[in-house]
Amino acid sequence: MRIKDQHKQEAIIDATIKLVNEIGFASSSVSKMAKMANVSPATIYIYYKNKEDLLVSTYIEIKKKMSRFLLKNFDDTLPLRDIFMNFWKNGFDFVKQNKELYQYSEQFSNSPYSELVNQSELDKHFEPFIKVLQKGIEQKIIKDVPFDVLAAFIFYPIMILSNPKTCKNIKLNNQIIESSFNLAWDAIKL
Amino acid sequence: MRIKDQHKQEAIIDATIKLVNEIGFASSSVSKMAKMANVSPATIYIYYKNKEDLLVSTYIEIKKKMSRFLLKNFDDTLPLRDIFMNFWKNGFDFVKQNKELYQYSEQFSNSPYSELVNQSELDKHFEPFIKVLQKGIEQKIIKDVPFDVLAAFIFYPIMILSNPKTCKNIKLNNQIIESSFNLAWDAIKL
Repeated sequence: MRIKDQHKQEAIIDATIKLVNEIGFASSSVSKMAKMANVSPATIYIYYKNKEDLLVSTYIEIKKKMSRFLLKNFDDTLPLRDIFMNFWKNGFDFVKQNKELYQYSEQFSNSPYSELVNQSELDKHFEPFIKVLQKGIEQKIIKDVPFDVLAAFIFYPIMILSNPKTCKNIKLNNQIIESSFNLAWDAIKL
Repeated sequence: MRIKDQHKQEAIIDATIKLVNEIGFASSSVSKMAKMANVSPATIYIYYKNKEDLLVSTYIEIKKKMSRFLLKNFDDTLPLRDIFMNFWKNGFDFVKQNKELYQYSEQFSNSPYSELVNQSELDKHFEPFIKVLQKGIEQKIIKDVPFDVLAAFIFYPIMILSNPKTCKNIKLNNQIIESSFNLAWDAIKL
């Protein structure tokens, strides 16, 4: 039996992101990904069942990395507004420092492959956020609406404002990030 | 000289939307679009320079239709909150009634073709909204932040909440549409 090699697996994920960003999902194949990762196709099949499995696993890796990044300096003794401000800033930093991951993830969520993701598995990585929102709702600080609605105002605007395609007329800087946080906070606070 | 035929042009646009939604931008070609629209490729070239021109023109047609739809019952003598509530509801109705147009437009904005759009030309169709926002800022009712930031809270949440891929856990109904408007309005109001 062959031992799984973490470095190889990372190289495969990196190659998948790079290839998909370059040529799209449809034209990507396991053999092209293997070539880009400098491994044999057989090596990829040690780790992943098929192209779909590799594409979905790559997306989940990105989301895991993102949730770890968003939780940097997480301190649930802080006032809720500060906790969310911290998430907000980390979110913009993540997109800025991980443009390729962000690009892959945007394409993936708009593709039919997104149907293959086990959503409740994915949600686990975002539990700390969900807990903070829940606490805020119980303490009557956050509006009592479904999490998907809260996310449309506290999470997705980070993606919209970081995307030069949806946001052509402004230059993203700390001032914009901070002033737009006021809009996000005013949206979700009771 | 051949006379341009509005019906033919509409059939070409409809076929483009249908084909791209089915097989994606990369695999779509003028000859496949002609076949789907039941016209000859030569007919398409009467109206459009090439595939890119057709894809971009289709996107602009969708945006025009959307702006007309959003302006239904527009009445600038109403209080600003009511004007925006009206936009908000029309936005959800538009996506609901035009799923194919919405799907095309989402894919298009995430594609490299979006670079080819003349943005200021497109913005003209959204002038009434921009004017209302401007008026709101002047009257100190709306926060004085760039339009792109306001759009991330008053326009894009409609797209996020209408998208079953980003919004898996809620069933969109009038109650959700109205309660989420409160978040949008609280975000942008001063």
